[in-house]
Amino acid sequence: MKVLVINAGSSSIKYQLFEMPAATVLARGMVERIGSEQSGLSYHQAGQKGSRDVQAGDHQQAMGVILQALTDAQIGALHDIQEIAAVGHRVVHGGEEFTDSVKIDPDVLDSIERFADLAPLHNPPNLTGIRAAQQALPEAVQVACFDTAFHASIPKAAYLYGLPYEIYEQFRVRRYGFHGTSHRYVARRAAALLERDPAASNLITCHLGNGCSITAVKEGKSIDTSMGLTPLEGVVMGTRCGDLDPAIVFYLTDKGYSIEQLNEMCNKKSGLLGISGASNDMRNLVDLAEGGHERAKLAIDIFCYRIKKYIGTYTAVLGSVDAVVFTGGIGENSPLIREQVCSNLPQIGIEIDSKRNAGRSGEYLISAERSRVRVYVIATDEEAAIAADTYQFAR
Amino acid sequence: MKVLVINAGSSSIKYQLFEMPAATVLARGMVERIGSEQSGLSYHQAGQKGSRDVQAGDHQQAMGVILQALTDAQIGALHDIQEIAAVGHRVVHGGEEFTDSVKIDPDVLDSIERFADLAPLHNPPNLTGIRAAQQALPEAVQVACFDTAFHASIPKAAYLYGLPYEIYEQFRVRRYGFHGTSHRYVARRAAALLERDPAASNLITCHLGNGCSITAVKEGKSIDTSMGLTPLEGVVMGTRCGDLDPAIVFYLTDKGYSIEQLNEMCNKKSGLLGISGASNDMRNLVDLAEGGHERAKLAIDIFCYRIKKYIGTYTAVLGSVDAVVFTGGIGENSPLIREQVCSNLPQIGIEIDSKRNAGRSGEYLISAERSRVRVYVIATDEEAAIAADTYQFAR
Repeated sequence: MKVLVINAGSSSIKYQLFEMPAATVLARGMVERIGSEQSGLSYHQAGQKGSRDVQAGDHQQAMGVILQALTDAQIGALHDIQEIAAVGHRVVHGGEEFTDSVKIDPDVLDSIERFADLAPLHNPPNLTGIRAAQQALPEAVQVACFDTAFHASIPKAAYLYGLPYEIYEQFRVRRYGFHGTSHRYVARRAAALLERDPAASNLITCHLGNGCSITAVKEGKSIDTSMGLTPLEGVVMGTRCGDLDPAIVFYLTDKGYSIEQLNEMCNKKSGLLGISGASNDMRNLVDLAEGGHERAKLAIDIFCYRIKKYIGTYTAVLGSVDAVVFTGGIGENSPLIREQVCSNLPQIGIEIDSKRNAGRSGEYLISAERSRVRVYVIATDEEAAIAADTYQFAR
Repeated sequence: MKVLVINAGSSSIKYQLFEMPAATVLARGMVERIGSEQSGLSYHQAGQKGSRDVQAGDHQQAMGVILQALTDAQIGALHDIQEIAAVGHRVVHGGEEFTDSVKIDPDVLDSIERFADLAPLHNPPNLTGIRAAQQALPEAVQVACFDTAFHASIPKAAYLYGLPYEIYEQFRVRRYGFHGTSHRYVARRAAALLERDPAASNLITCHLGNGCSITAVKEGKSIDTSMGLTPLEGVVMGTRCGDLDPAIVFYLTDKGYSIEQLNEMCNKKSGLLGISGASNDMRNLVDLAEGGHERAKLAIDIFCYRIKKYIGTYTAVLGSVDAVVFTGGIGENSPLIREQVCSNLPQIGIEIDSKRNAGRSGEYLISAERSRVRVYVIATDEEAAIAADTYQFAR
């Protein structure tokens, strides 16, 4: 069975076509700059990589471009788009309602629209993507997979903030957490590598990309995570500030900043970019730091320090930890970051083996033999997880 | 030598008179409701406890009331106020300038005034108290002891936020930390109880009162602490929210709250009070929870959970920990809170002995014999620490 996985952003749609249940990737690619004069398609299909200019004035047209590419005479992976039995959609915010992936019906669409308030940058384009797919593939089963769903198991004492209780009751202000599909995927893979039942493994999963979040996984379930109501909370990220004394917002409004300016600053101009003043890309920062750029080094130090703190935090939350997992662009590709994060943790019992940490791709152990806690690098695959969930509804 | 210790708030002055270097307390008390129609003096002097109505329209008059009480025929501890050789003042914010206690001169006063911006509720009354003491006791040595000073050793990667670097350069927005005199005092006492050189002991000190902060003390020095630019950050407190997704402020302004309302809410209506809807006093909450009050129990659970998280955080920051110390009103008096905070921490190696934890006063060990990390209760004494610092400048 062919399952198409769709990740629709405000001006892009990423796609990946799977043969299920084998989870073989038949095609993948992205339409970018949707709504601009000149949109672009990049693809990896039928053993070929390429890109071309396309017309995609809106998400509906972009979906047409994707389906055309999938059935293209040269690079196509399908004879007919009717072969697509199901479409899985990444949706960022599922509020308190969705604790798992769900088959899309009008009520589900209403709920996703309602939660747009909590994820104004993400849920509206996710919704547009779903509608475009429904129109183009009316016979296919449509499934929504929520970034928040894996964190639905976080207990109340961990998801509530220290605000007046009415703020939760009235506005649903609480910790939701994100990157759930990735944390769930690597947690299951880690349990397999540990040769343990997921329900008997305690893990700290570190998803470190341009956005970063860390999750405490107890007996297979998320019990706490570093992102909160929004993806701004937690560790320092590419352009997001992460944890902050909330009074800094009050202090800076007093200095003349508007809320809009501060929101923009905290989300777009902070983090690695803001501290270094040079780049939000860890590869650039590592190069710059090696060349003596002090603030690039400072950005790296702060980044690693904050992650180390969360590893300690979640060790306490879990009581005991079987393994720490690194994933995401930085987590999978930066031995230097992994080594610095895991340095000097004798009491918790984490010790990296430098040779093992020197990096390959895929899934591998990087902790020393005598390390009480195992440390793994596991390449995440959110699309495969979405395809697997979607397949469950369509088979 | 007689040393007077002064802690001046916006409408109160607390005082304590010491015989130094023995650190014997000769008298202590407080003038409250300064500036109101009817101010009050409460005292513990010459073996007598008492209180009376007094006239104290401003801090200058309140200082007069204190000096009169100290030389009172019945309850006085002095024949003549000229016996007071030195006055030590608690000052909340020393900015980046003061890394230790300091003898007050006009430049010091200017700096304290400058930092009022960072501690608008505290530094102005602290300054008023200093000026009142200078006027009443012009011959005495005046010394300022800063709540922030002990935290001056926090390294840059720990004190910088993930904001654009210019925000630090321009507005000095960084982690300062508070309760430094208390953390320093209990850290030295803990080293003594461990029979170790303070410079060879790693500690996590938990100051839990109406305000709460937790500090990582490495080799005698603060290397990180939970309060930040202001005392709002960190664990959940009596009425303060503690750590928050900073985007919650943006979200709630969008819902119609003003910055002033949110500032007031986060500082005065949140924490134990806001969650429980019942009280900011832990003793009340414990009673209520025992009687089945669900939100009182929730407030206690969140309070303990957040402290547990910081114990994990600072275990990672320190690498290895010799002891955890509980101090402050809640830390010294609530076995239930200490037990819940320290429950289920096998990996870190903390185990409480319930019998030892059942509570006395003073300084005592509450961890089990086999606990890898020792856990102590140590009654804090900020006034004695201020008196000791002050004595160094006057002897």
